[in-house]
Amino acid sequence: MNLILFEPSEVDAQGRVVIADRRAWHIREVLGALVGTSIRAGVMNGPRGRAMITKATSDHVVLQCSFDEPMPPSPRVDLLLALPRPKIMRRLWAQLAAMGVGQIVLTNANKVERAYFDAHVLQPKTYRPLLIEGLQQAQDTRLPKVSLHKQFKALVEDQLDTRFPVGKRLLADPGADECVSELISHDRDERALIAVGPEGGWTEYEKALLQRRGFRTVSMGHRTLRADTACVAMLALVNEALWSRSSSAGA
Amino acid sequence: MNLILFEPSEVDAQGRVVIADRRAWHIREVLGALVGTSIRAGVMNGPRGRAMITKATSDHVVLQCSFDEPMPPSPRVDLLLALPRPKIMRRLWAQLAAMGVGQIVLTNANKVERAYFDAHVLQPKTYRPLLIEGLQQAQDTRLPKVSLHKQFKALVEDQLDTRFPVGKRLLADPGADECVSELISHDRDERALIAVGPEGGWTEYEKALLQRRGFRTVSMGHRTLRADTACVAMLALVNEALWSRSSSAGA
Repeated sequence: MNLILFEPSEVDAQGRVVIADRRAWHIREVLGALVGTSIRAGVMNGPRGRAMITKATSDHVVLQCSFDEPMPPSPRVDLLLALPRPKIMRRLWAQLAAMGVGQIVLTNANKVERAYFDAHVLQPKTYRPLLIEGLQQAQDTRLPKVSLHKQFKALVEDQLDTRFPVGKRLLADPGADECVSELISHDRDERALIAVGPEGGWTEYEKALLQRRGFRTVSMGHRTLRADTACVAMLALVNEALWSRSSSAGA
Repeated sequence: MNLILFEPSEVDAQGRVVIADRRAWHIREVLGALVGTSIRAGVMNGPRGRAMITKATSDHVVLQCSFDEPMPPSPRVDLLLALPRPKIMRRLWAQLAAMGVGQIVLTNANKVERAYFDAHVLQPKTYRPLLIEGLQQAQDTRLPKVSLHKQFKALVEDQLDTRFPVGKRLLADPGADECVSELISHDRDERALIAVGPEGGWTEYEKALLQRRGFRTVSMGHRTLRADTACVAMLALVNEALWSRSSSAGA
């Protein structure tokens, strides 16, 4: 936890916060922070800054906050992910939030098992704390938006263009010739939507549907990766392409 | 499991294999493969090819193998990793093998807890099956070499140059200016050794020691990532830089 996140409702008008949950325990036991210590803090979907510990007892911690840094920049990448099995999805939430993703769009696909949609790990009360864990790790405050779609065709044909009106669309595919950095432009407003398929891959029909909607296949080498590994790897490549290009364009 | 791996001792002189473990179950239940079906197969640290199912009962499967593809290319990247907590390390084994790593060098560091070294997940009988799981996912046969070092200074000062005589040395650091693709050369023989620090980071002393041994800091943006996420992200970036450069140099 490199930054402690508070809900806007937890911060009173004077910037004072009282917490009595796992964050309080973390401050006392892991950070070993004492009264007078200042730690990194932020407000969910809001600014970042510092919080000074003004009181710490065995059951609660009081902090005086000063959020004088702007919100971190919005992620420029979104993810269209065929719903992985629950065990993998559970591991992925925090990692996606840590890497920085605007929208996480989870979809059905031919090779997604229907039972996956009933998993606890798709309930906001389960995944929200995991997303927050990832944000606190990465010192971000922007909670990814999550949506769940049981109709792949309807999602791709009727909703993608509205949800993602601009940006490159990239489809991870071990057989592709192009690599990520060749498809991301120097434009500072460039964005990307990444599609990662199910175990066993997209069907030819699904792949064709995505390609008709502007997805270009990109390779990360000939290795077939599990969904969680593929997501982190693709996000790393796209983020590097987006941000290194924009900083060199600004130089 | 996109390729079934056999130990060399399991394959007889006629290319026949009899298995009765989880792989047999996987062939029957997950692949639903019947007698006469041919599946992707490989020999540990050896060639790849195909295996035809010649018999399948409720407790064992017999396959006739033909390994007519050469070994996959050696990974050109190695990893120096400050030992993460056991839960994270457990998740990482298969992912590292799937991404492709030559050597996994696990080291102590100031912010590594001593108790981590006693974890079950560091015993070959625990991690070897996890590495094999990753290889089978990625269709590779080359098992990463693993070593464990309790003396960081002795490892870095006395052993690194012998173990890694050539190649770039990269130190993941959110504060760095350079990015991975700027430091990897076009040389087809280029290799890289990546260092990923503990939760809480390397100490200044440790970082200086690594830098004196030729490590250059590289950034993946300002986000602080957990060790498992950082490893996968760094490996993705280094692999893309290594392989895309060598294919364009060959074009």
